[in-house]
Amino acid sequence: MDLFEAVTRRRSYRGDYKDQPVPRADLVRIVQAGLDAPSGKNVQTTRFIIVDQPDTVRRIAELHQINKAFQQAKAYIACLIDKEPPAVYENYSFQVEDCAAAVENMLLAITALGYASVWIDGWLRLEDRQRIIGRLLDVPEDKVVRILLPVGVPAEEAKSPAKMAFSERAWFNRCGSTE
Amino acid sequence: MDLFEAVTRRRSYRGDYKDQPVPRADLVRIVQAGLDAPSGKNVQTTRFIIVDQPDTVRRIAELHQINKAFQQAKAYIACLIDKEPPAVYENYSFQVEDCAAAVENMLLAITALGYASVWIDGWLRLEDRQRIIGRLLDVPEDKVVRILLPVGVPAEEAKSPAKMAFSERAWFNRCGSTE
Repeated sequence: MDLFEAVTRRRSYRGDYKDQPVPRADLVRIVQAGLDAPSGKNVQTTRFIIVDQPDTVRRIAELHQINKAFQQAKAYIACLIDKEPPAVYENYSFQVEDCAAAVENMLLAITALGYASVWIDGWLRLEDRQRIIGRLLDVPEDKVVRILLPVGVPAEEAKSPAKMAFSERAWFNRCGSTE
Repeated sequence: MDLFEAVTRRRSYRGDYKDQPVPRADLVRIVQAGLDAPSGKNVQTTRFIIVDQPDTVRRIAELHQINKAFQQAKAYIACLIDKEPPAVYENYSFQVEDCAAAVENMLLAITALGYASVWIDGWLRLEDRQRIIGRLLDVPEDKVVRILLPVGVPAEEAKSPAKMAFSERAWFNRCGSTE
């Protein structure tokens, strides 16, 4: 799929998935897109766990009360970063940015391959879920499941959220300028 | 360009640019890819300034001592976030992640259109550069230039940095497991 088409078609999907498996080869291809993302000082900080073992998938799925895609996922991709990221440039760490860039690459790859997903972050930080899922996946104590992506074949069209116009968020040469 | 080709070909480019302009229509298309990125709770926090006015470009270019792409850029895309991002979900803000996802979309769009760039972040945080560039671009006091992307036509092949193998960063179902 063309890059711009993938960018435009990517949606946060919370609807039903079809009862159709996601081949591991596709999951590997999606994660490879995550590995190919840039990282601050090329430190390649994000780690990835592809979860497609049915019992583990089920145990994660049961944790969500609302999100249908999460509940019906055929696989998950867990993204791990350090709990206390070390500085890699002056006093700065870029693990949050590294991980987000990898996630965006993977969301585009998911879209291009005909799947759908949604970026799960804040939900993981509540009610001890990062730790619960981390223990299921043998995540070491010094790392945390920062992002979780459910993967499956969408059964419906994703809703298009309201988006601000270009002129409300982007300008030329000066803040607020249209020239 | 195919999504996976753009993902694979995107490189952090610090070499010479050709003396070739970047049409504004292409810069708009690149920023539109940034606007199309997901954001936490769809709050669409990142703001963008396309800098292509030659005098402003020159004043920014002169700030870098080493990076040739930065020094020879035909345009820049500045990404702004709030200095003190408000919470949008429980106690959490996702502006850093929102901005990083938008940057990754734009880097892929830059690649697909035949340009090259490099993600400038840490450098901006040193020696008061965020404020200096912010003043050039009339950025209000409550926002900060978090990321700056130089844009131009690369004059040489970008170097491929050493990348870890899949098995060093990605596993199946359990941390460290190959199954």
